[in-house]
Amino acid sequence: MDEAVSDDQKLAAIRDRIDAIDEEIQRLFNARAEAAQEVARIKLAADPQAQFYRPEREAQVLRRIKERNSGPLDPEEVARLFREIMSACLALEQPLQVAFLGPEGTFTQAAALKHFGHSVQCLPMGSIGDVFSEVESGACHYGVVPVENSTEGVISHTLDSFVSSPLLICGEVTLRINHHLLSSESGLQQIRTVYSHQQSLAQCRGWLDRHLPQAERVAVGSNAEAARMASQHAGVAAIAGETAAEIYGLPQLVSNIEDEAGNTTRFLVIGKKDAGASGDDKTSLLLSTQNRAGGLHGLLSPFAEHSISMTRIESRPSRRGIWDYVFFVDINGHRSDPAVAEALRQLEQQASLFRVLGSYPKAVL
Amino acid sequence: MDEAVSDDQKLAAIRDRIDAIDEEIQRLFNARAEAAQEVARIKLAADPQAQFYRPEREAQVLRRIKERNSGPLDPEEVARLFREIMSACLALEQPLQVAFLGPEGTFTQAAALKHFGHSVQCLPMGSIGDVFSEVESGACHYGVVPVENSTEGVISHTLDSFVSSPLLICGEVTLRINHHLLSSESGLQQIRTVYSHQQSLAQCRGWLDRHLPQAERVAVGSNAEAARMASQHAGVAAIAGETAAEIYGLPQLVSNIEDEAGNTTRFLVIGKKDAGASGDDKTSLLLSTQNRAGGLHGLLSPFAEHSISMTRIESRPSRRGIWDYVFFVDINGHRSDPAVAEALRQLEQQASLFRVLGSYPKAVL
Repeated sequence: MDEAVSDDQKLAAIRDRIDAIDEEIQRLFNARAEAAQEVARIKLAADPQAQFYRPEREAQVLRRIKERNSGPLDPEEVARLFREIMSACLALEQPLQVAFLGPEGTFTQAAALKHFGHSVQCLPMGSIGDVFSEVESGACHYGVVPVENSTEGVISHTLDSFVSSPLLICGEVTLRINHHLLSSESGLQQIRTVYSHQQSLAQCRGWLDRHLPQAERVAVGSNAEAARMASQHAGVAAIAGETAAEIYGLPQLVSNIEDEAGNTTRFLVIGKKDAGASGDDKTSLLLSTQNRAGGLHGLLSPFAEHSISMTRIESRPSRRGIWDYVFFVDINGHRSDPAVAEALRQLEQQASLFRVLGSYPKAVL
Repeated sequence: MDEAVSDDQKLAAIRDRIDAIDEEIQRLFNARAEAAQEVARIKLAADPQAQFYRPEREAQVLRRIKERNSGPLDPEEVARLFREIMSACLALEQPLQVAFLGPEGTFTQAAALKHFGHSVQCLPMGSIGDVFSEVESGACHYGVVPVENSTEGVISHTLDSFVSSPLLICGEVTLRINHHLLSSESGLQQIRTVYSHQQSLAQCRGWLDRHLPQAERVAVGSNAEAARMASQHAGVAAIAGETAAEIYGLPQLVSNIEDEAGNTTRFLVIGKKDAGASGDDKTSLLLSTQNRAGGLHGLLSPFAEHSISMTRIESRPSRRGIWDYVFFVDINGHRSDPAVAEALRQLEQQASLFRVLGSYPKAVL
């Protein structure tokens, strides 16, 4: 009995301490918001059209927070909290509208919220083209579109949209995508057929060999389609993500069945301007050369010369002729870094088409 | 030029101030998490099965934060940030699994995240019954189910589930639901048919009379169904919420078309225990009496006697006979409040069925 009282006293004392901490955190939240308002006033006085969202500044703040975090909270978790604080402070000065691709939907929305925090207004669009035009027209400040999504095959629409759009890339977002076995059946022994996109089937092959050797594997157009079929037929399971499970109300019979963990999907944030240098950036380029075979190698040599690493290269047939390709190239570094600037200058002289799609901070969260 | 430099200097000084504030906030976040860990250690030493989630304590913290907030941040926004801080601190001690109703899906998930913050793991279930059984079996700590959702008609499943479940209500969540006109068409003049659930059509009647007098209104089973049809046919619009717009990738042709703003949907949080008194609570009851007509009035008289207001009463036919109903009653107050306790004691003596489904804090956010 004595000990229980003493526990209660200890707990009450700790709760008082937490309450005092909360009061101080709240005071600091509002002090931070006031400081952000001061920044806004100064910027507006100099330029009535001033934009307050600065991706490079936010990336720097988040990186510093992750680096200096001593725990016990996880650095990712603390960064996520600061993501929300910055989102709330920014909304006070300038509420942001962010267009995102609706159909594959919730992944891209999750990416938008991960990047901008929950104080922005996210507007679903019917197509990647609609996301671009919504931002071009000024109806939305920014857009979020998928660019490397191995299972949904939307990547080419996004790349093609840049060819005819003046918009720039001002950020990237990565999401870890997990695959689950979704089914209304109560056990693996009831599963006779597994539907999924062929890439997802391939990414879970080892698990399927071990746990569902008897089930037929059928490739369908998308994981969402697979989930829809699993929701309508007996003896069927789908491999799909949480989004599809939610939409079709399918239980996760087994979670995280991918053979290699860490399958990520990448999204781009598009806007009318790209980002300033944050110290750890990427630059995306749109290039073309007349001849694909030898031309490309020569075209890219300035990167090797200046020790700039390419993180991705993607070729797309252009609409101008059978041997005429456009290339989407991502490199490490900001276009204002001296080495990058010099390589780009050389590249521009050789390429038949040359456009910087934007420099932006590498994904922090 | 001088002025520009001076602006830059001012901005740099403010950014330094923000950085210092951030560092202090980060320190306090971790100090708070450490204090929460201490609470966990004391509780675990006394009871190895101790639960750390205390809905009444969280409600009190959030209410106090809203009351004392001086701005410039909005009280709701600051409360939302603290919701996330508490979520992160709790996850450090005890990661929570929360089951929610999947099909109508994203609304209920939004409610779960609004209530628990983003540091919990939310698991979609195929039915309300599955949410209950997942929590009963201990596979999930808590469940979130819709209870007053005028457009989807799920309310009765939730109420009926309580009749045969030992679970208690430990919280409520309200979400404001807005109605949008969704269509792939580019303008109102192209809309010949509007699909929606009949209740949504009714809630937007004035707007439809003014802006779409020529369009036929067709009632369908759910707003999600209406959105699906609008996504597949030309000349068609649906009235539905953001969730449906996202799932079917339909643009919001016109937003917030409901005649009266503030249509809210209510959800219940279910678990093995209800909540302690927070100072502003509700209590939900399951009651039955033999005779519906006179019996109910008499049954409820203890509430009037003790000046306890009922906020809701819902009757459901039980399976025991044609005149045998069960009633779901919500009252203001906690079952431990003296007046409530006395009224419940009187009620219990008169009712043929009497169960307290739980006392819990009124929705704060």
